[in-house]
Amino acid sequence: MKVERSLSEVVSPTLKALKNPGLLLVSVDENGRPNAMTIGWGFAGILWGRPYFIVAVRPSRFTFSLIEKTSDFTVNVPRKGMEQAVSFCGTVSGRDYDKFKECGFTSCPSKFVRSPVIEECVIHYECKVAYKHRLSEAGISSGIISQWYPGGDLHTLYFGEILAIYADEDYERSLP
Amino acid sequence: MKVERSLSEVVSPTLKALKNPGLLLVSVDENGRPNAMTIGWGFAGILWGRPYFIVAVRPSRFTFSLIEKTSDFTVNVPRKGMEQAVSFCGTVSGRDYDKFKECGFTSCPSKFVRSPVIEECVIHYECKVAYKHRLSEAGISSGIISQWYPGGDLHTLYFGEILAIYADEDYERSLP
Repeated sequence: MKVERSLSEVVSPTLKALKNPGLLLVSVDENGRPNAMTIGWGFAGILWGRPYFIVAVRPSRFTFSLIEKTSDFTVNVPRKGMEQAVSFCGTVSGRDYDKFKECGFTSCPSKFVRSPVIEECVIHYECKVAYKHRLSEAGISSGIISQWYPGGDLHTLYFGEILAIYADEDYERSLP
Repeated sequence: MKVERSLSEVVSPTLKALKNPGLLLVSVDENGRPNAMTIGWGFAGILWGRPYFIVAVRPSRFTFSLIEKTSDFTVNVPRKGMEQAVSFCGTVSGRDYDKFKECGFTSCPSKFVRSPVIEECVIHYECKVAYKHRLSEAGISSGIISQWYPGGDLHTLYFGEILAIYADEDYERSLP
């Protein structure tokens, strides 16, 4: 049973899980096949009077090609015990693996976007891309460039308006 | 007595206060005179392996000219009872008023940045600008443009690496 939540209510456990073990960013292709990517970076907040989730995706990622087409995504906070699946989704590409099948994820239709949520996760954000920005190398310190972008491939930031947030009734007991 | 905190620990009350009554964004001029601006938009999260606070400032604002010069700012969560001061700091410009004086704010030196914090607030973020991005009109829907930018003046997003977070020992009792 999933219950609607406010951003300020669930953002603390969300950012805690973002740091460790990571969150699952779900997008979908034109045939409805979903893909999950593990993210350790991202932002939650308010812009233009609405709640937003910003995710950062490198152009080389399979997820990038999906979000570019559908302009939506979901963010899912994994349940305690899903650490191995989170690690797997951060290691292999959706070009080579059906990660939902490999991890035993149940794809649950979203209410407002095409990308589904992962039923087994505890907190879910449905997001529609309202703005995007590719990071500009010119504005980034050389230390960050050499650490994170030795091969270029700078992240695009997708600003996803949060259309729905919901979580397990007892989500606090199930957090990673 | 202020105690060091983690982002995930204090982000929930921070985003709650961001929505209502607002947070106080503090910057400083070259002579050390601080200014406070009320913000209702912003983001907290992780980028490049570090915690970040993103604030949005219009180029017409006095705060914009200050952050452009010093490249740092602090974000302060007001205490319960400061609602009138928060409203005042969102109404008038630091070009016309010494808001710290008018509101009776105590300017407390930061540990890592030039912009001070407001002693009377309950949670404080010290931030150093590592990246900035001026929103591009081309990527924003016409509905958002007509609602928020009828006169242009599109926000610049300042990505502030969070160098310190601290709060009152009993901050939960003092939140707005």
